[in-house]
Amino acid sequence: MAPLTPRVVVPIDVKKRPWEQLVALHNRWHPEIPPVADVTEGELFRVEMVDWTGGRVGDNNSAEDIKSLDLTITHYLSGPLRVLDSDGKPAQPGDLLAVEICNLGPLPGDEWGYTATFDRENGGGFLTDHFPSATKAIWYFEGIYAYSPNIPGVRFPGLTHPGIIGTAPSHDLLNIWNERERKLAETDTGSLKLCEVLHQRPLASLPTPKNCLLGKIKEGSSEWQKMANEAARTIPGRENGGNCDIKNLSRGSKVYLPVFVEGANLSTGDMHFSQGDGEVSFCGAIEMSGFLELKCEIIREGMKEYLTPMGPTPLHVNPIFEIGPVEPRFSEWLVFEGISVDEAGRQHYLDATVAYKRAVLNAIDYLSRFGYSKEQAYILLSCCPCEGRISGIVDSPNAVATLAIPTAIFDQDIRPRSGKVPKGPRLVQRLPDVLRCTYDGKLPVTKNPGGT
Amino acid sequence: MAPLTPRVVVPIDVKKRPWEQLVALHNRWHPEIPPVADVTEGELFRVEMVDWTGGRVGDNNSAEDIKSLDLTITHYLSGPLRVLDSDGKPAQPGDLLAVEICNLGPLPGDEWGYTATFDRENGGGFLTDHFPSATKAIWYFEGIYAYSPNIPGVRFPGLTHPGIIGTAPSHDLLNIWNERERKLAETDTGSLKLCEVLHQRPLASLPTPKNCLLGKIKEGSSEWQKMANEAARTIPGRENGGNCDIKNLSRGSKVYLPVFVEGANLSTGDMHFSQGDGEVSFCGAIEMSGFLELKCEIIREGMKEYLTPMGPTPLHVNPIFEIGPVEPRFSEWLVFEGISVDEAGRQHYLDATVAYKRAVLNAIDYLSRFGYSKEQAYILLSCCPCEGRISGIVDSPNAVATLAIPTAIFDQDIRPRSGKVPKGPRLVQRLPDVLRCTYDGKLPVTKNPGGT
Amino acid sequence: MAPLTPRVVVPIDVKKRPWEQLVALHNRWHPEIPPVADVTEGELFRVEMVDWTGGRVGDNNSAEDIKSLDLTITHYLSGPLRVLDSDGKPAQPGDLLAVEICNLGPLPGDEWGYTATFDRENGGGFLTDHFPSATKAIWYFEGIYAYSPNIPGVRFPGLTHPGIIGTAPSHDLLNIWNERERKLAETDTGSLKLCEVLHQRPLASLPTPKNCLLGKIKEGSSEWQKMANEAARTIPGRENGGNCDIKNLSRGSKVYLPVFVEGANLSTGDMHFSQGDGEVSFCGAIEMSGFLELKCEIIREGMKEYLTPMGPTPLHVNPIFEIGPVEPRFSEWLVFEGISVDEAGRQHYLDATVAYKRAVLNAIDYLSRFGYSKEQAYILLSCCPCEGRISGIVDSPNAVATLAIPTAIFDQDIRPRSGKVPKGPRLVQRLPDVLRCTYDGKLPVTKNPGGT
Amino acid sequence: MAPLTPRVVVPIDVKKRPWEQLVALHNRWHPEIPPVADVTEGELFRVEMVDWTGGRVGDNNSAEDIKSLDLTITHYLSGPLRVLDSDGKPAQPGDLLAVEICNLGPLPGDEWGYTATFDRENGGGFLTDHFPSATKAIWYFEGIYAYSPNIPGVRFPGLTHPGIIGTAPSHDLLNIWNERERKLAETDTGSLKLCEVLHQRPLASLPTPKNCLLGKIKEGSSEWQKMANEAARTIPGRENGGNCDIKNLSRGSKVYLPVFVEGANLSTGDMHFSQGDGEVSFCGAIEMSGFLELKCEIIREGMKEYLTPMGPTPLHVNPIFEIGPVEPRFSEWLVFEGISVDEAGRQHYLDATVAYKRAVLNAIDYLSRFGYSKEQAYILLSCCPCEGRISGIVDSPNAVATLAIPTAIFDQDIRPRSGKVPKGPRLVQRLPDVLRCTYDGKLPVTKNPGGT
Repeated sequence: MAPLTPRVVVPIDVKKRPWEQLVALHNRWHPEIPPVADVTEGELFRVEMVDWTGGRVGDNNSAEDIKSLDLTITHYLSGPLRVLDSDGKPAQPGDLLAVEICNLGPLPGDEWGYTATFDRENGGGFLTDHFPSATKAIWYFEGIYAYSPNIPGVRFPGLTHPGIIGTAPSHDLLNIWNERERKLAETDTGSLKLCEVLHQRPLASLPTPKNCLLGKIKEGSSEWQKMANEAARTIPGRENGGNCDIKNLSRGSKVYLPVFVEGANLSTGDMHFSQGDGEVSFCGAIEMSGFLELKCEIIREGMKEYLTPMGPTPLHVNPIFEIGPVEPRFSEWLVFEGISVDEAGRQHYLDATVAYKRAVLNAIDYLSRFGYSKEQAYILLSCCPCEGRISGIVDSPNAVATLAIPTAIFDQDIRPRSGKVPKGPRLVQRLPDVLRCTYDGKLPVTKNPGGT
Repeated sequence: MAPLTPRVVVPIDVKKRPWEQLVALHNRWHPEIPPVADVTEGELFRVEMVDWTGGRVGDNNSAEDIKSLDLTITHYLSGPLRVLDSDGKPAQPGDLLAVEICNLGPLPGDEWGYTATFDRENGGGFLTDHFPSATKAIWYFEGIYAYSPNIPGVRFPGLTHPGIIGTAPSHDLLNIWNERERKLAETDTGSLKLCEVLHQRPLASLPTPKNCLLGKIKEGSSEWQKMANEAARTIPGRENGGNCDIKNLSRGSKVYLPVFVEGANLSTGDMHFSQGDGEVSFCGAIEMSGFLELKCEIIREGMKEYLTPMGPTPLHVNPIFEIGPVEPRFSEWLVFEGISVDEAGRQHYLDATVAYKRAVLNAIDYLSRFGYSKEQAYILLSCCPCEGRISGIVDSPNAVATLAIPTAIFDQDIRPRSGKVPKGPRLVQRLPDVLRCTYDGKLPVTKNPGGT
Repeated sequence: MAPLTPRVVVPIDVKKRPWEQLVALHNRWHPEIPPVADVTEGELFRVEMVDWTGGRVGDNNSAEDIKSLDLTITHYLSGPLRVLDSDGKPAQPGDLLAVEICNLGPLPGDEWGYTATFDRENGGGFLTDHFPSATKAIWYFEGIYAYSPNIPGVRFPGLTHPGIIGTAPSHDLLNIWNERERKLAETDTGSLKLCEVLHQRPLASLPTPKNCLLGKIKEGSSEWQKMANEAARTIPGRENGGNCDIKNLSRGSKVYLPVFVEGANLSTGDMHFSQGDGEVSFCGAIEMSGFLELKCEIIREGMKEYLTPMGPTPLHVNPIFEIGPVEPRFSEWLVFEGISVDEAGRQHYLDATVAYKRAVLNAIDYLSRFGYSKEQAYILLSCCPCEGRISGIVDSPNAVATLAIPTAIFDQDIRPRSGKVPKGPRLVQRLPDVLRCTYDGKLPVTKNPGGT
Repeated sequence: MAPLTPRVVVPIDVKKRPWEQLVALHNRWHPEIPPVADVTEGELFRVEMVDWTGGRVGDNNSAEDIKSLDLTITHYLSGPLRVLDSDGKPAQPGDLLAVEICNLGPLPGDEWGYTATFDRENGGGFLTDHFPSATKAIWYFEGIYAYSPNIPGVRFPGLTHPGIIGTAPSHDLLNIWNERERKLAETDTGSLKLCEVLHQRPLASLPTPKNCLLGKIKEGSSEWQKMANEAARTIPGRENGGNCDIKNLSRGSKVYLPVFVEGANLSTGDMHFSQGDGEVSFCGAIEMSGFLELKCEIIREGMKEYLTPMGPTPLHVNPIFEIGPVEPRFSEWLVFEGISVDEAGRQHYLDATVAYKRAVLNAIDYLSRFGYSKEQAYILLSCCPCEGRISGIVDSPNAVATLAIPTAIFDQDIRPRSGKVPKGPRLVQRLPDVLRCTYDGKLPVTKNPGGT
């Protein structure tokens, strides 16, 4: 007889707020957040999830919600799930948890998403020094395709994936995180930049009880107080997986996660309809609510078998994954290159981040020749299935990074052609544009004297 | 009537030294290196090239030639070629030169290559602080496939490409290069590291008359003296293309190069049978002699049309390219992840270079579980068609980089599996190993306390 | 504001019989079957459908339901849908109806399917002379993947598609169909074979009132009587599309259908989770209930613009389609070849059908070396994403056809290897086997003397 | 030390006639044609070959050479090669010979090819009843790309392959061939057609001493006399492989050939720069001279292990092959469909050949809307990398075949679009056209009344 349809272990009602959901959500990493359900090795189960902001960004005509978003709320995750083997024995620290993503998608009835750039004073993004204003584009889904009323002339199939999937950290691992990130945060001595290149703020997001949601743990209780002050924020990807934003972690792929606490305590969230490598605008994927259909396998003692720690403790490991077989297929790509020389012409040493920044800036300027505003291009490169590569990392002093854009997503041929840019389509501005707020801060914008 | 077979504009005799070739080679970038031939828009022509060292690395059983290689000799390039339109008018500064790679390959009779890591005191590489010794692997070609007696059990189709393709810089551009790289070199205040992470030396390779080859310009002449002291070294990729090491620039691809001097003065060299993204071991591709069949098109005033300068002058641009249609096709990939936390557990801020270093280290350790030495794995990841991605660059403080390895290149299933690593193949060391030299220096090796 | 979720124009309750559904189904082609809904150009809508037998095949341990299936019931289709442009004007005869398949899948709660071979006396199949018994395999879905308890050791992603999509015929076209098929049926002069090669019966399925379902037309009414006697059966693909069984008509693909009646009257059904080219076992896809999310565009007068009639009337046309971008990706294929020489060694003249039959027989025998029964292999090749090609059709007297199987769907390496077939996995029979009935007829089985 | 460059076992001088080559060629299959060289398992060797006609078709402005070509001359093959294992023991009957195609291409200095349709009285082709005249198109190669002055606006990468690769038949197998083909030829009772559908002539090409070339066997000797009267013609693919025209047998692929005589006696020829599935115009690939770099492996007793005979004797087998990893990659395909109803509107029974004929006719007519002559389209579909599929072969009475064309090979968008076919490019005839001869015969042309 057929197995039941995937068991829903975390149902979501998108009309409710994150803390009103039937099964409690959480927005921090902590070993003591209580599991909300058990799942068994081999079982197909379904996890639903709110969008990363829990519904605070609207399908409307303004980017004000982005500008004022309080980032301490993010990301709302579904779980933790306690994983058992077929004998009922939970996963143990030292095991490897293989999670197969059998299916995923938007939640029925909620087939839309958004991509945005934060205000420079509130979150920023990879190019926030060039684009300090909050902006937003809405995306609508037609099955596998997405299109945006704010970025006319592009339509592409989603390489849908969860931005966040991870296991709970142990107390030891949590301490390692908090300590190393605090150390970094303390290096911020008033300057707005690090290495005079990256302008995103803050340097790290340290634990804070503000807006902290810890599943069934009652807010304000002493247990909550203690946990909220040490629970790790969800922004960065870390040893437990977490916010890796690996865009190829889509249908049919498999992630091998280290297990740090009994039961593994798997959580997931931050569903992306599509994202480009780097997710450059920060709120850069097509963010949405969604569902995952998952199947777990416990590889006993797999951490020792397959993961070599890289760092001072056995906990300094990273997940491994396998790519699934149904990614969108593109045969033509236009590729932009960047080297580690910054906008001021200053040479950096094998800095792939600077090189990639330049590759993205080059691509944005290029697309603006075809009728797009730079803000449209920035958001598009953040969420379309473009590939960001570290092409050369040894030819000192220049790192070379590349950004490859599939040309089939455009309704025009965007390749360079002999002869003048034609009068006509390319010069027509693609309207309407992304939604924008004013930037009210006083931080300087990076100048690109060569860009006119 | 059929067009003639591609006209050979630069023939190579691999039995001769670089300076003995019929058509003079060069190993520096300089506007005044005289063109060796004219090519016309639309014409199919053939350029042959020595390997980047001009034959100094041998198909033998020792890595000593790598250990003692004088890097001031590199890279030997073929060209420059002056590009004319069909009316005989040369390409002009401000034009865009579209170069299509119609075909390429090893030179008949010289179907072998090598991959190597340099000694830490002489060139180094991305992981030189972990692997300070010079090592070498020989590769033999069977048509589209390469295999190595030094790395048993792997065989893969080449994604063959020129590591270097570029136009000559103008004097202005040359000055910009020299100035910014000198500035960087001067920051090296005795420390062996920059950012305490990357250990490759030197920071930059400044102009030097030592081993300088300038085509037909007679060595020692006053013209040569002047040029040799200002001609740029070929190590880094720059505004003119150059040593981009973009592994997908293979058969059927097209590169759009900015033109800085009359005639464009196109040069190329450093042929790679195959390379992984990043070319991590530095001498990291399968290095070989080879040939290119090229076709050029001049897009008049294309720089203004298509390239936006990013920096203080209109010369601060980067090439664009299109990927060709016959790349090797792999459907299964195993992916390793790294975050910007270094081996000491220290947190770095959105540093994609650190994150990629960690991803590569993770992959090397993983492969060493399957019978390979770490040196074999390092070299393999440097030259096999693996993909290096910037997956997340906004989730402060962690950059997330990934390294994807096509599993079909191995003769065993390297995916994680439930149950113990089997007694048998995986525990058998894959012998013979890469060729190794001793490291005689005294620089400390980076410790990874978790790695044993 | 976001558009509503796709409007459900035909809902299905899989617990109800076909004639009990809320929106009436039909199982014949006829111009007068009344549309069940209007859809507008550009609108995203959802059509749900029963499996082709309307639930008569069960998820159980017997193939008896297959053996006794009355084929006059098939195929139950959803529709017809009347297609209007944005001004409300219906599609007109002569227009081309572009239908984009934006999404599709199994119905939630009904994630299973079956593949079967019919009894030789009741439907048969491509190889019914070799395999006269009814057999059945059950498939379960795990998101994008299917696996069968009856065919162990294979698992593959679905290339899901509707077996049937088509527009209603006009009366003229209906007459053409009935006439030409009747003529063929009348050539069946008692012999069991045509060309002594193909043994499937009957030659054609002519109109019959038996089990005829005509949407809202009341069974037994005079209108029904008249229509039932002339309505075309749904078995063959024809000028209107219909049962084309084109396996690549999946997510993101587009079909351009000729319009023969006002409104186009689009119908669809016979959902396949997966199918191989040829669908060789006849009930050969993974048959299931399912849903489609569609979007239509009317290309006015498109038939004349884009379709050239091939035959005596302007109605003798065929649809065109475009393949979507998210097909499963396989890089390794094992290919079997057949030529137009039959099992008796008799030469046929450029007969691609005979050649393909031989290619399939070759593949079945080959797979039986790896532990599978021939019945398992037959069903597997019918429903897995294998490709059937007409490789050579001019080298008289032999047509050459090929069948390419993606090797990644197996849990063992099925490629030929030097040395003996290993004792071990390959010799172990893959159990359990497909479900089988006895064949109670007396038709002779085709002998393959060479096969032992 | 590096292995030598591939050993050339059959060198070709394209300026010489086939019978003047240094190593003797042959144009028949016979067990007694003496091997021209030994090759050893594991060795990489190079075989060069003339084009299938041995230079009788010219790079000129006339199709007369095609019209008058004597088909008894074809195909000129290189070989046979005797294959030994590493102990020097030859391959034995019953073994399987695995031949890997490590590389291939045109001969340097001869980078051009041709595609043609034969006159209906002399060879014909798949659509000879529609296109009775001899026509020809010349193709020039630019590395991996081909373009034709006779078919403007298309350019595509080659999926280069040998049309013919096979082992020598044993006497028993040769007898089987001659007998079954003679039998077929004798059924030709004056009618021009078989099944009233396929019009190609003759039905089979029986042995004839005319133009028979048997390697080193001296023409006219008694040995030659005997052999020439029984040696099989090379036109059809058969049990030994031979003229399979499988377009995917390209770089990196592997063919497993049955061995019928000691040494295997491998021959190859009929190089195709590119071909579409079916090779519909008969001289339908881009025919050229060329080279193969091959590597053999002997799988001892592999025929019994892996091939099941399908027919009266153990010799009734077919080769198997694996597809290589570097096929050109296309993501967008336009697909044409055909059903087994012929141009007269007559219904045929599951006849894939008729269905494919109709699919090709549909595609030709479609392309003629975009400025191409039908002859241009016919030749293009014969040689471009299009895919011919048997989509449905069970839905009686209609077989459904499809022809998929990669849209990227055109310089215009050939997909159906809303609105009228634009004035402009599509209506402009693409000139010049293919080279044509008159058809001087009196056979009737098939009428397609619907086609205007």
